[in-house]
Amino acid sequence: MTDFTRTRAFFHLPENLIYMDGNSLGPLPRRDMERLSCTVEKEWGEMLIRAWNRAGWMELPDCVGDRIAGLIGAPKGSVAVGETLSIKVYQALSAALSLRPERKVILSDSGNFPSDLYIAQGLIDMLGRGHQLKIVRPEEVAEEIDAIGEDLAALLLTEVDYRTGRRHDMAALTQRAHRKGALAIWDLAHSAGALPVDVTTAEADFAVGCTYKYLNGGPGAPAFIHVAERHIRHISPALQGWLGHADPFAFESDYRPAEGIARMRVGTPPILQLAALDAALEIWEEVDIHKLRARAIALSELFIARVEARCPMLALASPREPEERGSQVSFRFKEGYAAMQAIIDRGVIGDFRAPDIMRFGITPLYLDEADMEKAARIIADVMNNRLWDAPEYRARAPVT
Amino acid sequence: MTDFTRTRAFFHLPENLIYMDGNSLGPLPRRDMERLSCTVEKEWGEMLIRAWNRAGWMELPDCVGDRIAGLIGAPKGSVAVGETLSIKVYQALSAALSLRPERKVILSDSGNFPSDLYIAQGLIDMLGRGHQLKIVRPEEVAEEIDAIGEDLAALLLTEVDYRTGRRHDMAALTQRAHRKGALAIWDLAHSAGALPVDVTTAEADFAVGCTYKYLNGGPGAPAFIHVAERHIRHISPALQGWLGHADPFAFESDYRPAEGIARMRVGTPPILQLAALDAALEIWEEVDIHKLRARAIALSELFIARVEARCPMLALASPREPEERGSQVSFRFKEGYAAMQAIIDRGVIGDFRAPDIMRFGITPLYLDEADMEKAARIIADVMNNRLWDAPEYRARAPVT
Repeated sequence: MTDFTRTRAFFHLPENLIYMDGNSLGPLPRRDMERLSCTVEKEWGEMLIRAWNRAGWMELPDCVGDRIAGLIGAPKGSVAVGETLSIKVYQALSAALSLRPERKVILSDSGNFPSDLYIAQGLIDMLGRGHQLKIVRPEEVAEEIDAIGEDLAALLLTEVDYRTGRRHDMAALTQRAHRKGALAIWDLAHSAGALPVDVTTAEADFAVGCTYKYLNGGPGAPAFIHVAERHIRHISPALQGWLGHADPFAFESDYRPAEGIARMRVGTPPILQLAALDAALEIWEEVDIHKLRARAIALSELFIARVEARCPMLALASPREPEERGSQVSFRFKEGYAAMQAIIDRGVIGDFRAPDIMRFGITPLYLDEADMEKAARIIADVMNNRLWDAPEYRARAPVT
Repeated sequence: MTDFTRTRAFFHLPENLIYMDGNSLGPLPRRDMERLSCTVEKEWGEMLIRAWNRAGWMELPDCVGDRIAGLIGAPKGSVAVGETLSIKVYQALSAALSLRPERKVILSDSGNFPSDLYIAQGLIDMLGRGHQLKIVRPEEVAEEIDAIGEDLAALLLTEVDYRTGRRHDMAALTQRAHRKGALAIWDLAHSAGALPVDVTTAEADFAVGCTYKYLNGGPGAPAFIHVAERHIRHISPALQGWLGHADPFAFESDYRPAEGIARMRVGTPPILQLAALDAALEIWEEVDIHKLRARAIALSELFIARVEARCPMLALASPREPEERGSQVSFRFKEGYAAMQAIIDRGVIGDFRAPDIMRFGITPLYLDEADMEKAARIIADVMNNRLWDAPEYRARAPVT
C-alpha cells in the first residue's frame, strides 16, 4: 500500500514552495543525484567506452522502456525510448499511414498538443499523397470517426488536454476507430504517471509520451513509443537509425529491421538523461497508480472547492466531473498570465497557457491537503487584492 | 598558443590507461562534474520549471550550436542542436531532396557510416518517388558525380571514414557536385574537434555531426545540423517539431517555421546532456585547432612508425599520407577483435570494427608522445607473443 506521506521525501523540493507544475516538469528525485554522479564519474569517467557493455548502457533504453510499459499497461518489450516526443509522433503516424495506405484522413482535435499537429502537417506535406489532417473539437471526435468512415487512416489524439485537463475515453474512441478499420495513436504525455493507463485493454495501436512531466525524468528526458504486438512486424520504420538495425554492430550497408520494438530505436541513446529517468522511474515500484489516482482526485476536488469558494473571477476550465479530468486543474482568467506570475512570486508554482489558461498540476507524490489549502489561500489573496495588476507581472515572457 | 601539456588536466582519465578511443566516446571533462551538479541540484532542483528562463535552458541549444559553429567554420546562428545524428541526417537529406525535386539520385560511398545509408534508404522508401541511393567506393565518388550529372540530387558523405580514417576532399567534391547542380551533405562525426573544418569555404550545403567523439560531450550527447544560409529560408522541415515553430509558446494550431536555423529544432532539448556538452565545448576556447591538427599528425606518424617497426602482421588500413587521414589510425588484422580485447586488457583502449579493423584514436588534448611509445610497446607485446590467442578474447561481443 502506498504511503503518500513517505513519497514526498523521494524528491528534492525547495522550502516554502508549493510545486503545482509537475505536469510540465517534474521535480528532482533525490536518488537522481547519486545515480548521475555514478553514471558520470564511475561509468563514463572510469570505464569510458567500456561502459556501453560493463555498465549496461546498451540495455538501459530497454530497461527504461520496460519500466514505462508497466505504467501504461503495455507488455514488456513493447516500448522503445529515445529522442523527443515529436520524433515518436512522427514514427507512430508514418507507421500508421503505411499500414493503411489507401486511406487519406488523419483525425485529431483542437485539444491536441500543437507539436503533434505540426508533425502530422509536415509528414503530410512530405508524403504528398493527398492526406488530410482534420481537426475537430474534442467533443466532436466520436461522431467524426463515423462520418469519415472508411477513409479514416488514423486517429491522433492526446488523451489528456494540456490546457484544460479534459480526458478522452481512450478505449471507446479506439474501438470506434477500429470499427471503421482505422488505427489509433495516443499521446500519453499528460497520462503516464498521472493516472492508470491500459493501452492493452484499450487496444491502442500506438502510444507515445514524454517522461519529464509526471514521470519526473528531468528536463529534456527522452520520449517513448509503444507499438501493439500485432503491428510491429509489419512496420518498416520511417526513421531507420542504426540502433534499430537487426545487428547494429555488424555495420552492414543495408538496413534490416530488428525484431520487435527494437526497430523503433533510432540513434545513440542519451545515457545521462536515461540514467536520471531510470532512477526516477524506480519510485513507481513503491506506488500503486490506482491509489495515486484516487488521491489526486481527492486533492483536486479540495483545491477546486477552495479556489471557487474564494475566487469568483476564476472560471473552472477543467471538466467538473473528476473522471473526465487528467491530473491537473485549470482556470480561465483574462489576465491569467499576469495573475500566474504574481502567484508564482508568492510561492505557488503553476503555469499559464495561451490565451487565458492558468494550470495547476495535482501530483500526490509530493503534494498533500495542506498544500491545497495553502495554495488556495495564496491564489485568493492574489486574485481578490488584484496583486497581479502590476507592471512586472504584465510583461509577456516564454513559459514552458 | 595551445599548451598541450596543460590540456590533459582538463580530463578525468583513469591511471595506467592509454585512451585511444576518443573517436568513439571522448573522456569525461573534469568541469562536467561541477556543471552537471549545478544543472541538476541548483537549476532543476531549486528553480524547477523556472530554470527554462532563469537558468538559460531555452537558449542552451543555441549557445551550444554557436560553439560548434566556431569549430566547423560556420557562422553563428547556423547550427541547431538536438536529438541524434540519424535524425539530423534525415533532416538534411529530406531538405536537400525537397530543394532538388526533379532529381532522383543520392550518391554515397561504402565508407559512409551505415546509419546514414539506412536513413537514406528509409526516406527513399517513404517518399516512394523513385529516388535511388547509389553507393560507390570512396575513390569513385568524384567521377560518379560527373557520370550521374543532372540527375544527382545530393551527395551524402562522411568526411572521415569511421573504419579507415580516410578523409575526403570536402571542398573539391562539393564543388564538383555544385557544378552539376547537386547539393552536398557532409557528416562531420569524425571531423569536428579532430581537424580544421570550414564548411563555409567548402560551400557545404548541409553539415551534420555527433558530439560524443572528439568533442567529448558524453555518452549520447545530442547531434548537430548546419544549413547554409542560402538554403535555410527555402526549407520546409520534414520534422516539424514545436521548438522549430516561429512562436512555440503561442501554441498555434498551424506550423509556421521559425526564422533561420531555429526551424531545424524539433523537440524539447535534453538539458542534462546539453549542459555536459556545453561544459566540454568550453575547452575549445583554449585550443587552436590548427595546432591540434599538427600535433595529431605528429603523434600519428610516431604511432604508425613504432607499430609498423614491431608488428609486421598489422597492415596499415589508414592512408599513409597524413593529410588524407582524419585523426585515427587503423590496422587490418584477421583476428583483430581478439587482438583488440587483449590490448585493452593491457591498458590501451582502442576498438574494433568489422570485419578486421583495429582502430586507434589520436587525440592530442590528452595523449602525448610517451603514450604513443608505450601503446606501441603493448601492442607489439600482444601481437608478437600471440597474447590474443586465448578463449576469453575470441568471444564476439558488441562494441560501440
